[in-house]
Amino acid sequence: MLSFENDYSEGAHPKILARLAETNLEQQPGYGEDGYTLSAAGKIRAACECPGADVYFLAGGTQTNRTVISALLHTTEGAVCADTGHIACHEAGAVESTGHKVIPLPGRDGKLQAEDLRALLRRFYADPAHAHMVWPGMAYISHPTEYGTLYTRSELEALSAVCREYGLPLFLDGARLGYGLMSEGTDVTLPLIAKTCDAFSIGGTKVGALCGEAAVFPGGAPKRFFTHVKQSGALLAKGRLLGVQFDMLFTGGLYFEISRHAVQMAMRMKEGFLRRGYPLFLDSPTNQQFIVLEDGEMERLSRRVRFCFWEKADETHTVVRFAVSWAATEEMIDGLMRILDEERTR
Amino acid sequence: MLSFENDYSEGAHPKILARLAETNLEQQPGYGEDGYTLSAAGKIRAACECPGADVYFLAGGTQTNRTVISALLHTTEGAVCADTGHIACHEAGAVESTGHKVIPLPGRDGKLQAEDLRALLRRFYADPAHAHMVWPGMAYISHPTEYGTLYTRSELEALSAVCREYGLPLFLDGARLGYGLMSEGTDVTLPLIAKTCDAFSIGGTKVGALCGEAAVFPGGAPKRFFTHVKQSGALLAKGRLLGVQFDMLFTGGLYFEISRHAVQMAMRMKEGFLRRGYPLFLDSPTNQQFIVLEDGEMERLSRRVRFCFWEKADETHTVVRFAVSWAATEEMIDGLMRILDEERTR
Amino acid sequence: MLSFENDYSEGAHPKILARLAETNLEQQPGYGEDGYTLSAAGKIRAACECPGADVYFLAGGTQTNRTVISALLHTTEGAVCADTGHIACHEAGAVESTGHKVIPLPGRDGKLQAEDLRALLRRFYADPAHAHMVWPGMAYISHPTEYGTLYTRSELEALSAVCREYGLPLFLDGARLGYGLMSEGTDVTLPLIAKTCDAFSIGGTKVGALCGEAAVFPGGAPKRFFTHVKQSGALLAKGRLLGVQFDMLFTGGLYFEISRHAVQMAMRMKEGFLRRGYPLFLDSPTNQQFIVLEDGEMERLSRRVRFCFWEKADETHTVVRFAVSWAATEEMIDGLMRILDEERTR
Amino acid sequence: MLSFENDYSEGAHPKILARLAETNLEQQPGYGEDGYTLSAAGKIRAACECPGADVYFLAGGTQTNRTVISALLHTTEGAVCADTGHIACHEAGAVESTGHKVIPLPGRDGKLQAEDLRALLRRFYADPAHAHMVWPGMAYISHPTEYGTLYTRSELEALSAVCREYGLPLFLDGARLGYGLMSEGTDVTLPLIAKTCDAFSIGGTKVGALCGEAAVFPGGAPKRFFTHVKQSGALLAKGRLLGVQFDMLFTGGLYFEISRHAVQMAMRMKEGFLRRGYPLFLDSPTNQQFIVLEDGEMERLSRRVRFCFWEKADETHTVVRFAVSWAATEEMIDGLMRILDEERTR
Repeated sequence: MLSFENDYSEGAHPKILARLAETNLEQQPGYGEDGYTLSAAGKIRAACECPGADVYFLAGGTQTNRTVISALLHTTEGAVCADTGHIACHEAGAVESTGHKVIPLPGRDGKLQAEDLRALLRRFYADPAHAHMVWPGMAYISHPTEYGTLYTRSELEALSAVCREYGLPLFLDGARLGYGLMSEGTDVTLPLIAKTCDAFSIGGTKVGALCGEAAVFPGGAPKRFFTHVKQSGALLAKGRLLGVQFDMLFTGGLYFEISRHAVQMAMRMKEGFLRRGYPLFLDSPTNQQFIVLEDGEMERLSRRVRFCFWEKADETHTVVRFAVSWAATEEMIDGLMRILDEERTR
Repeated sequence: MLSFENDYSEGAHPKILARLAETNLEQQPGYGEDGYTLSAAGKIRAACECPGADVYFLAGGTQTNRTVISALLHTTEGAVCADTGHIACHEAGAVESTGHKVIPLPGRDGKLQAEDLRALLRRFYADPAHAHMVWPGMAYISHPTEYGTLYTRSELEALSAVCREYGLPLFLDGARLGYGLMSEGTDVTLPLIAKTCDAFSIGGTKVGALCGEAAVFPGGAPKRFFTHVKQSGALLAKGRLLGVQFDMLFTGGLYFEISRHAVQMAMRMKEGFLRRGYPLFLDSPTNQQFIVLEDGEMERLSRRVRFCFWEKADETHTVVRFAVSWAATEEMIDGLMRILDEERTR
Repeated sequence: MLSFENDYSEGAHPKILARLAETNLEQQPGYGEDGYTLSAAGKIRAACECPGADVYFLAGGTQTNRTVISALLHTTEGAVCADTGHIACHEAGAVESTGHKVIPLPGRDGKLQAEDLRALLRRFYADPAHAHMVWPGMAYISHPTEYGTLYTRSELEALSAVCREYGLPLFLDGARLGYGLMSEGTDVTLPLIAKTCDAFSIGGTKVGALCGEAAVFPGGAPKRFFTHVKQSGALLAKGRLLGVQFDMLFTGGLYFEISRHAVQMAMRMKEGFLRRGYPLFLDSPTNQQFIVLEDGEMERLSRRVRFCFWEKADETHTVVRFAVSWAATEEMIDGLMRILDEERTR
Repeated sequence: MLSFENDYSEGAHPKILARLAETNLEQQPGYGEDGYTLSAAGKIRAACECPGADVYFLAGGTQTNRTVISALLHTTEGAVCADTGHIACHEAGAVESTGHKVIPLPGRDGKLQAEDLRALLRRFYADPAHAHMVWPGMAYISHPTEYGTLYTRSELEALSAVCREYGLPLFLDGARLGYGLMSEGTDVTLPLIAKTCDAFSIGGTKVGALCGEAAVFPGGAPKRFFTHVKQSGALLAKGRLLGVQFDMLFTGGLYFEISRHAVQMAMRMKEGFLRRGYPLFLDSPTNQQFIVLEDGEMERLSRRVRFCFWEKADETHTVVRFAVSWAATEEMIDGLMRILDEERTR
């Protein structure tokens, strides 16, 4: 059955598999000290125009978030994020399991607003009892957000300015970063992210790799981050598995190419939905599209194509997500449209 | 340079890579609910002769240990192990980072002895102050141990008996399990492990996979283990990566075949060392060999072949480890012997 | 300067000090195994009409909350509470520091509503992704709330019914419990609390003791709670300090008597405020009164009497708290009123 | 029954109770901001000849250890101590519950030796795999130790030198500090401790207070220690309870006077044991005496006097502890001797 359930339904981009096969029998040091990991880190530094950045590779997204966040925070601190942030909702309390509170603020289209963050910080420091409270210790944003939306350059700069004013690191969760960078009209680039953020991830799992996220620290990694990663259970013995993949993704612009393709397919899908009169839950310029379906139609469609329940819209309608992966083809999008048409004319 | 530094210097067995490539574009559900993961779990249950076992797949060894151990222990409990146990030495405090003490007992050749465990438990319960102490909450053993040694059937049964008498789960860390099971003369089998242990892992990373460990719970997994894994940052979105690999490893006995080969190569290496008069630090029947080298010779050898520092033997000698992976060949072993001979005759 | 800043500005009720002095040189076992602790526990069981309850004594309120909550929750679980709940706001992330999320729901006058809790639980279990989320593992309420308000019998029974339907323990934080029980018109009694809750505390610190909270478990304490208390740093060597105090508080109804007195003083204060036209922020029937002051008046008053900043009401007004302790006298209340009058007529 | 079971069997020194009563109805700010706490801190700074020290007051010993230690350590670090150290044995895993390993070294008469610590640190940094291990992050010593023994000035200076060479804070657990400082012949003083240690506690609970330990940081407290204390559940609302007690203990040398008395009583007891031919387990110059008893005699004595089981000496003998508190009298010691004589002549 055709699936748009998520963007990790397939394996890896064929070039990645080929590279893994080619390099398979080379003997390489473990724990990320292999040549491919070093090369990948270098290419990422170059793409970020940030030669001083520290780059680590971890296996998964929640793992990266909990490991980076717990390394950035003091025991008395929590991580501020939009209330729809992944760490607040869908990571099973991973951040709290490291002893830190997640401090949610109402998001707008999934985004944390600089003015809301500033208001929170002002309120906190103005409260005479603030030493009895969790200190806001960093800001967490996702880009694209959990709703596929994007920060603009000016939004990102405003957040960064607030964070720097108050001494908070800004962490950008880029589990789907490629789809954001390749979205038409965005003015956010990798170098901009490296300038505005203190830490960010470049997602591989959802952008063509078998697994893996790069954790980038433009101003240097937190103290003994290697040991912290090991302690967190996030260090792969065969670090090459991540090194080879990211080295290939950042060779010849593969990461960007496959991201652009997925966004193009998603736009084709969005236009198809709009042309057929389906309401968007919100206007996403990236590879995740959120559509409002009448519950009966949702039920019928779900027998012929896979998509993801997101939330109830009202008594009789539901928001669902159609995610387009790097592996999506025009045929798959057109196939979906045919199904929509067939179900409608029944 | 020829390397016996560890058993994770190469990538995966070619059959695994081929299978990943074959299945690459199939759309599969995420988070371990794909068909390959289900199939792999079934094959492991069969190999263990334990149809009721729960089987989960995680990415790495330390990750598996910390996730399983923290799920098995009550807040007041710690994990008892040999003082050379991996969790006590080389996991950067991963278990303690989940809030639990590691309780080391003097090991013998890396093994925890049933009588020592029983003595600890007796002493604990006889101490009128024991409610002020960490409760021994489980026993952790590794098989093969960190020194390549193996429990015998009777040792394993004795440990299991003590554990059951006192209500402690017994967890076997099988990061290199294949090499133990295929060691000549062992009387420990997978079904025996499933009968005597309450949890154990079947290592993939060091036995031919790119990454991955199977966590097996013969009597059923701890409460909400899936969420616990997610919270621990140990859940891969593309669970298929682990499923496909273990499905292949447990098809046609590949796991056992490549383990047997590595052990044969290790025995060829051991004989070579012995014939040349090198003292063994201890007699390991598995893929890790521990040799005592005079420091000058160690220094010279280290320029031509990679091996691993283990510990100082005395002022002028050092224990080093030569690890033989599934990918080792007779040529590699013979190459090492040639180097030994050349260095000796200088 | 006259202070209504909080209800812990004075030491202990004189009868408690006298009893500490009387019993001072008796040799008693440590760690809560002394005769006074046993006696106090018995009297509390009797007052709760719950002969099977386990009773422990801890030194402080945040300590009691974090120790009890972490003992009640599974690693995958969080504590649901009103968004104004003490654990969500003013305990510096104590619950999160034990690895558990606090899950806030919008409160009404500081209270968690049964229907809101039920809706959360329904939504949680209906969400197909709930295994990727923190499980609601218990409900936390405070009585009186942080706003001095009280649950009614029927509200408490409704919450208890939802909790039992879903298998969640209900924990009532009674840091100021006496003031709730002695509030005029309440239909909530200690035996009712023992019937509806799975755990609750009886606050001493804010009700006439030097320090100390009783943690009561009507159906029995969590597994090895004694060791858990010790590990949490919450076990006093001289447990008698808590035992003697609670034994006295529950002798001859002292706990209730001093609570009733404080509530009477608070009502005298409330009437004084109302008579003078001060708006209440909300109508509290207990020893904490929340008044809305114009900022200029607040500033002037603060030079003559101590009270507590609570929150901004609007641009030019502030909510402040006047807390009345067991030690407050009619003279103190009348003194406050005189100050109000003098400031007004300036 | 006469008890030497521990040094916390009685309440507080009468002067402390009197002072609590005198100051009882004064209104004072909460959370350690009262005048008594400020005064006590000042007196402690003066006694330590360390005007820049930060001083905090906490309720108990385990609480102080876990709160201070978790504030001093980085996530990757553990606390090194003698294997008989309180944090390693009798605090129910309190340190581990904050995520940190306790790293025990073989103690000599309960003491951590500078050379052993240095050897551990050298071994650690020389191990090429040390980034995969827990970093030794601080040293913990107790003075007097759990066996009543004392560091000499030169031992303390040697430990301090090693710690400073490697950048480790040195923490001295002074739960029974008074008895150490007043031991005849010691050359360790409070100012010396303040010079050699980065953190230390001055025990009140076991030296005449109802409860309470002072945590002293000669070079300043760790970042946001107040909030950390609150989060740890270690902040008393009525901080005055601790402030008044320590203010009295450090007025007119009361702390030292009652400690000296207890040590004198303990020496009288030790001489009595020696004169009667009882073997000492080790030679303690402080208020705890460890005697080896034949099991039959131990059993008979235990019907007439309370003491504390410590550990088995051999098959037929047991080490027991007789602890002498500030409240012990010559009559009590002589009473014990009479019992010994009567039992012997039976």
